[in-house]
Amino acid sequence: MRIFSTQKDTIETIVARKQSETKDVSTVVAQIIARVQQQGDQALFQLIEEIDQVTLSSLTVSLEEVETAVQAVSPELLEVMEQAKENILTFHQKQVQQGFVLTKENGVVMGQRVLPLAKVGVYVPGGTAAYPSTVLMDVLPAKIAGVKKIVMITPTDSQGKVPAAILAAASVAGVDEIYKVGGAHGVAALAYGTETIPKVDKIVGPGNIYVATAKKMVYGEVDIDMIAGPSDVLIIADASANPRWLAADLLAQAEHDILAQAILVTTEAALIEQVQVELDLQLKQLPRKDIAAAALESSGKLILVKDLTEALTIANQIAPEHLELAVADPFALLGQVENAGSVFLGHHTPEVLGDYFAGPNHTLPTEGTARFYSPLSVDDFIKKSSYLYYPEAAMKAAGPAVALFAETEDLIGHARSINVRREGEK
Amino acid sequence: MRIFSTQKDTIETIVARKQSETKDVSTVVAQIIARVQQQGDQALFQLIEEIDQVTLSSLTVSLEEVETAVQAVSPELLEVMEQAKENILTFHQKQVQQGFVLTKENGVVMGQRVLPLAKVGVYVPGGTAAYPSTVLMDVLPAKIAGVKKIVMITPTDSQGKVPAAILAAASVAGVDEIYKVGGAHGVAALAYGTETIPKVDKIVGPGNIYVATAKKMVYGEVDIDMIAGPSDVLIIADASANPRWLAADLLAQAEHDILAQAILVTTEAALIEQVQVELDLQLKQLPRKDIAAAALESSGKLILVKDLTEALTIANQIAPEHLELAVADPFALLGQVENAGSVFLGHHTPEVLGDYFAGPNHTLPTEGTARFYSPLSVDDFIKKSSYLYYPEAAMKAAGPAVALFAETEDLIGHARSINVRREGEK
Repeated sequence: MRIFSTQKDTIETIVARKQSETKDVSTVVAQIIARVQQQGDQALFQLIEEIDQVTLSSLTVSLEEVETAVQAVSPELLEVMEQAKENILTFHQKQVQQGFVLTKENGVVMGQRVLPLAKVGVYVPGGTAAYPSTVLMDVLPAKIAGVKKIVMITPTDSQGKVPAAILAAASVAGVDEIYKVGGAHGVAALAYGTETIPKVDKIVGPGNIYVATAKKMVYGEVDIDMIAGPSDVLIIADASANPRWLAADLLAQAEHDILAQAILVTTEAALIEQVQVELDLQLKQLPRKDIAAAALESSGKLILVKDLTEALTIANQIAPEHLELAVADPFALLGQVENAGSVFLGHHTPEVLGDYFAGPNHTLPTEGTARFYSPLSVDDFIKKSSYLYYPEAAMKAAGPAVALFAETEDLIGHARSINVRREGEK
Repeated sequence: MRIFSTQKDTIETIVARKQSETKDVSTVVAQIIARVQQQGDQALFQLIEEIDQVTLSSLTVSLEEVETAVQAVSPELLEVMEQAKENILTFHQKQVQQGFVLTKENGVVMGQRVLPLAKVGVYVPGGTAAYPSTVLMDVLPAKIAGVKKIVMITPTDSQGKVPAAILAAASVAGVDEIYKVGGAHGVAALAYGTETIPKVDKIVGPGNIYVATAKKMVYGEVDIDMIAGPSDVLIIADASANPRWLAADLLAQAEHDILAQAILVTTEAALIEQVQVELDLQLKQLPRKDIAAAALESSGKLILVKDLTEALTIANQIAPEHLELAVADPFALLGQVENAGSVFLGHHTPEVLGDYFAGPNHTLPTEGTARFYSPLSVDDFIKKSSYLYYPEAAMKAAGPAVALFAETEDLIGHARSINVRREGEK
């Protein structure tokens, strides 16, 4: 891991993000999208053979497959998923927005309605990134919003099967339909619809570079949640922090992906040394040690600062997906956090509590986009619609002002739309 | 205008949207963005010469230029803009979201903070689409949200000047900085920053195909509001409607742009004939009659339905930007509106009241995207950040469930992050 100090490095150097050398897959993704748009299911079956090397007889996951999966997972896991579901629902229910109305003395009524999206597609990655927790996190806010149809898509293994834990999580969360397709072709199917897969209004969920590129390309045709990149954590630690725990948290992040970013910012030079020792010790115990070691080597950082204010400055510039405040008085720092997807307060709140269980969403803005994106929430599954009512007298009273404004913009037809209604006036 | 009837045409035929033959400008836009990203201000000056045919000495609109503009517009217009500002602020203040916190008996604390975006860029088109009303509509919600820096960009006329009404509106709305650049180059400047123009967190506002394409390309680097297309209105009218007023409202829409879409859906065959007569009469009186006539010819529709339920079905499938309910009892229909940017109720509430004055936003989802996009609102200028606190005992109690979930996902480092904290346990 690279070591920095604000004594000798500029903040600019410290916060500089490694330019990810993502290959440009836009040409191939555009071709995939065009094929699905033009040939529907037929293109999907072909693309699944070409790209995923699987021959499917059906795109649909049957009710029977779901039931078999629920039987196949342990009762303990089902119980934990039910507990997590309850916690997630409790938290997200607080996000429900209400419409409003303003009624004025002159009879004018105006307001805003809050309506659920009709159909939503949830992308669930396959392979080693097939996480049942993501199914719960992405589906449950949509359920609370009142989305009528929630469609899940996910790639299969080489046998044409979806992992049992994923299907069990879909059952617990209340997904309406599940299809066996991933990648850019899966995204295209949700955006344009095929004979089998319905066109949706919004696509949410993480995925690889093909998925992210396809989501960006279909944005506008449908809405999307955000463009997700590699996961990251930034931990701010003071002298009260436990180096063993800090190392474990950094490794939990690093094991995700060789592109994952784990950063420690501390006021204590000694802690940096202790954490390095712990990282070496604990790394050996990880099944995914190669991934974690590569991630730490590539973009891990240990940063020494002179005080916590400086630590917050760095954190706000990096805008981490996850921010752990491993300090004696974490609540005192919360008001200074400007940019972070989710904040974990104190020594006993490791990020993993939020990943699975506590309630807040784990689908969070990555790569510094916490500057403007928010955690996935019930707000992602609603739309708003405004309305306006003017009685005749109020319309006539507002008429001259509106007509003047319209004339300023050289839109005489706009002015006439008011004036034809005021003709009786005088 | 094409005439349809549900007696002889299918709903599918009636709602079919004309495929807009938008040229693909993505190659040239990508080149423009790359030049601005690499060469900053220098590229901007060159591109403004090449594309806008204007030689500027400075990109910045000076305070003096703004003051001169405020002097140049009529006191009446300033007064109307101040009234509109007050109405817009009153409506949008109701949109302010509060954070929340949940405190549990076991000491767990979790919540969501609502924070303003730090820097926002507002794009204001030039030429015949330079609307001061758009400045008010796009800037005032950002002010309410608490955005610290609001940067406006807009192209100049051939003399290097911005229309006085635009600058006066920026002054009324409280814009912080104004720059003389539009097009894809303006969007690129806001997304990546130059020596003069600050990099922002989000870009909002309408623009032509170059602007829309650039916004989509920089999406992810910054956030954007939506991808705006041509404006549209759909009017539902019953026997109580006034054909003269309906025609005026259809023309107010059609005069915007030859791509604008004006649709009338009615239960009355006679009304369709009367509206056609009125359209012919009123069209002659419009300065922009060529544009309006072309728009009506190209995508205007008069649709006869058997009842209002059928009218609503068609409206919900088209998902109009503006929906006028020109019926005797408009409030009775509001609950059946599923997809519409903004709804105008009754005979005395023409869309133009909302365009300028009433309070709801006029930046609305176009081209059927009201299925998933919302009117521009205070929500566009905030971000949310969640937080979580677990006391030691609560963390240890949740530990086994979290570890089990992590192990299911083969993320042993995640399980260890909890387990190292539970070692004292037993």
